[in-house]
Amino acid sequence: MSEHVYKSIELTGSSKKGVEEAIQSAIKKASETVRNLRWFQVTDTRGYIEKGKVAYWQVTVKIGFTLED
Amino acid sequence: MSEHVYKSIELTGSSKKGVEEAIQSAIKKASETVRNLRWFQVTDTRGYIEKGKVAYWQVTVKIGFTLED
Amino acid sequence: MSEHVYKSIELTGSSKKGVEEAIQSAIKKASETVRNLRWFQVTDTRGYIEKGKVAYWQVTVKIGFTLED
Amino acid sequence: MSEHVYKSIELTGSSKKGVEEAIQSAIKKASETVRNLRWFQVTDTRGYIEKGKVAYWQVTVKIGFTLED
Amino acid sequence: MSEHVYKSIELTGSSKKGVEEAIQSAIKKASETVRNLRWFQVTDTRGYIEKGKVAYWQVTVKIGFTLED
Amino acid sequence: MSEHVYKSIELTGSSKKGVEEAIQSAIKKASETVRNLRWFQVTDTRGYIEKGKVAYWQVTVKIGFTLED
Amino acid sequence: MSEHVYKSIELTGSSKKGVEEAIQSAIKKASETVRNLRWFQVTDTRGYIEKGKVAYWQVTVKIGFTLED
Amino acid sequence: MSEHVYKSIELTGSSKKGVEEAIQSAIKKASETVRNLRWFQVTDTRGYIEKGKVAYWQVTVKIGFTLED
Amino acid sequence: MSEHVYKSIELTGSSKKGVEEAIQSAIKKASETVRNLRWFQVTDTRGYIEKGKVAYWQVTVKIGFTLED
Amino acid sequence: MSEHVYKSIELTGSSKKGVEEAIQSAIKKASETVRNLRWFQVTDTRGYIEKGKVAYWQVTVKIGFTLED
Amino acid sequence: MSEHVYKSIELTGSSKKGVEEAIQSAIKKASETVRNLRWFQVTDTRGYIEKGKVAYWQVTVKIGFTLED
Amino acid sequence: MSEHVYKSIELTGSSKKGVEEAIQSAIKKASETVRNLRWFQVTDTRGYIEKGKVAYWQVTVKIGFTLED
Repeated sequence: MSEHVYKSIELTGSSKKGVEEAIQSAIKKASETVRNLRWFQVTDTRGYIEKGKVAYWQVTVKIGFTLED
Repeated sequence: MSEHVYKSIELTGSSKKGVEEAIQSAIKKASETVRNLRWFQVTDTRGYIEKGKVAYWQVTVKIGFTLED
Repeated sequence: MSEHVYKSIELTGSSKKGVEEAIQSAIKKASETVRNLRWFQVTDTRGYIEKGKVAYWQVTVKIGFTLED
Repeated sequence: MSEHVYKSIELTGSSKKGVEEAIQSAIKKASETVRNLRWFQVTDTRGYIEKGKVAYWQVTVKIGFTLED
Repeated sequence: MSEHVYKSIELTGSSKKGVEEAIQSAIKKASETVRNLRWFQVTDTRGYIEKGKVAYWQVTVKIGFTLED
Repeated sequence: MSEHVYKSIELTGSSKKGVEEAIQSAIKKASETVRNLRWFQVTDTRGYIEKGKVAYWQVTVKIGFTLED
Repeated sequence: MSEHVYKSIELTGSSKKGVEEAIQSAIKKASETVRNLRWFQVTDTRGYIEKGKVAYWQVTVKIGFTLED
Repeated sequence: MSEHVYKSIELTGSSKKGVEEAIQSAIKKASETVRNLRWFQVTDTRGYIEKGKVAYWQVTVKIGFTLED
Repeated sequence: MSEHVYKSIELTGSSKKGVEEAIQSAIKKASETVRNLRWFQVTDTRGYIEKGKVAYWQVTVKIGFTLED
Repeated sequence: MSEHVYKSIELTGSSKKGVEEAIQSAIKKASETVRNLRWFQVTDTRGYIEKGKVAYWQVTVKIGFTLED
Repeated sequence: MSEHVYKSIELTGSSKKGVEEAIQSAIKKASETVRNLRWFQVTDTRGYIEKGKVAYWQVTVKIGFTLED
Repeated sequence: MSEHVYKSIELTGSSKKGVEEAIQSAIKKASETVRNLRWFQVTDTRGYIEKGKVAYWQVTVKIGFTLED
C-alpha cells in the first residue's frame, strides 16, 4: 500500500480436482521463483473433458508481486 | 418474472476457504439490510496471497432484488 | 491437435451445491447426445437467491467437440 | 429455476417495421423446431439502409431453452 | 453541466409491451425515491418467452442523478 | 457485396418519441451529405430524463457507405 | 437481405498452412451438413507450436446461414 | 484485507481544472455520507468543450467501502 | 439537449507535458476545422519512452459535435 | 513521434483473395484522398460465403494519419 | 494436458510480408530463450503504412509455455 | 519501426501525487533492469482512499521494449 511498483505475470494452473486447486497450483509454482507475491485475479476458467466428465480444470490467473527496491 | 422493477448492487465478499463461501458472505451481508434478493452474477474473482498460498478469496458479485410497490 | 474441425455449443448447468457441479451437469447433459467432447470454457457464473443464501448455482459454458470425418 | 440444463442458440431476426418485430420473428422461427424456449438476450442491433431510410431492421438474439430429461 | 457530482444506479424495468415501456418503468420507479434524475444508458436487453412469443421485455439501465449540495 | 471499399462514420440521433425514430433521424441527416449509405449498427442507447420520464432518446449508430470508384 | 431469419454457429478450423486455409476448412466442413451458408466472422486466432514454429493454425469463426421457410 | 464485505458505488466527479481534481471531488462527496471508503477505479473519462477548450472534466469512478459489522 | 444529430470523430493528441495537455491539443486541432464541438471521451492513453522517461504522452479521444441544420 | 495530432478513420476493404489483400485495398483507397497515412489496426475480419467457399474477404481497419499544421 | 503450470508472455512480431510471417517471427524469437513453447493467441493486428501500402505488419501474440518441474 | 520483435510487460506504479507520476515511477523501475523501452499503454487507473482523499494513485501500464538481436 506504499509507493512500491508491482509487476504482474500470467500463469495457468491445472488440477484434476477443481477451480481452487488449479489456482493454488499456479500460485505455488510462481512462489518457487518469485518473491513477494501479493494478489491474483482470475482471467479465464477452462478445462479438458474425457468420458463426459471434466478431466482437468485449467484456470488462468494474473499474479501480482512487489518489485524490490 | 412479472412487471416488477429490479435494482442491482455490487458487493465483494471475502473468505479464507474459497470462491463459493466468499459469494455466500456477500449475499448474507446484503440480506441483512435488503429484502427480496433474487439473483447474483460474478463479475470478478481475485484474492490475496501470503506465503505462497491464497490467504483470502475475494469475489465481486452483482446482486439483484425486487423493488417493492 | 490435428487438422480436425471443432464445433462449440453453449450450455448452462445448474446445481444446488456449487460452481463445479453446475459445470459437470452441463457437460454430462451434452455427452448424452454429442460425441467427442474435448474442452469447455466458463463464460458466465450466476445463481438464484432464496432466504439470504444461494439456492441454485448456474454456470454457462462453451463446450467444444470434434466434428467427425 | 430447478436443476435443469439450458442450451442457448444465436439467431438474427429481420423486420421492415422495427426492433421488437425483428426479435419476435427470430423467436417465432426458433419455436417452430425447438421446444421449451425460456429467455432471450439482444447481442447486436443492425439494419440495411435504402433511400435514406432503414429498409430492414436486423436484431441478433441469444435464445435459451431447457434441455428435456 | 456544472461542477456537480453525479451518482449512477442500475435498475431493470419490465414490460409486456416493449423495450421503451420497460425503460420508462425503471425510470418511473427510480423517480419515486430519487430526485434530480438526469440521464440513462441501456446496458442489457433481455426478455422471457412463453408460447413462442415475448412475454416480458426486461431492459437494464444505468440511471444518473445529481447529488445535491 | 463486390470488391468495394466501405467507410463507416459514427452519428448520434435524437428523438422525443423513441429508439427507432432516433436512429432514423441520424440516418436521414447522414443521407443529406453522403451517398450510398448501406448499413448501420447500434453502439449506444442513452437518453435524458425530465420529470420522471424520458425527455430525449439518443441512439449512437455506426453508418457504413460505399466509397465510389 | 429480405425478412429471413439467420442462425449462426461457431466452428474452429485447423490448418498446417495458415489462417485463411483454417477458415476455409471450417466453412467446408459446415457446408457438408448445413445449406445456405452466407457469412462468417473471425472470433479467435490461435495455434499450436512445435520446434519453434507454428505446427497448426486454429481459427474460430461464427458462420451464419439462412433458416429456410 | 480481512473477511469484510465491501460495497462499490459509481460516481462522476466534475472539475474545471483536470482529471485528478474531478476524481477528488467525487471522493470528497462520497465521504460526506459514507464511512470507510477504501479504494476507487476509473471507469470513464469525459468532458465538455467550449470555445475549443475543455470546459469541464468529468471522470466516473467506482468507489469501494467496507460494510460495517 | 434538443433533437440535434451529433457526429463523433477520433483524434490522438500528443504532448511532452502530460495527459491533459495531450487532450487539449487534440481538441484545439479539431476546433480549427469543425464548429460546435460539444464533448470528448478518452478511449486510449499511451506514450513513447526515451531514456527511462515518458518522452511523449499520446491520448486518443472521441470528439462529438452538433451537425448544423 | 512528435507533437502532431492524428486522426483515425474506419474503412472496410474487400478481396476475393485473402485477408492481407483486403487490408491493402482499404489502405490504397484511403491514400487516394488522404495524405500522411501512418498506421492501421484490424478491428473486424469477416467474409461472404458462396458454394461452401469464401467468396469475399472483408476486413475492417482503423487507419491513422497525421493532421497537417 | 497434464497437471502442468503454464506461463504466457506477450510479444509483437514484425514482417514486411504479412500476418503469418509476423507471428512466426515472434515465435522464433521466443524460442531462442524459452523452452517448451506450446500455443499462441493473436491479440492485436496492426501495421505501418508508407506510400499507400503496408510497410510493416505487426502482430501481437500471447505465447504459452510449460513451466518445468 | 523495423523487423524487430517487441515484448510487453505489465507494471503498476504508485504515487502520492497523481496519475502521471505513478506512470513515471513504473517506467523508471522497468528501466533499471530492461533496456530499449519504447512505449506504454495505460490499462487501469485505481487508488487508495484515506480520510476522504486519494492517498495513493495506482496506474497499471503495459510497457513495450525491443528484444535485441
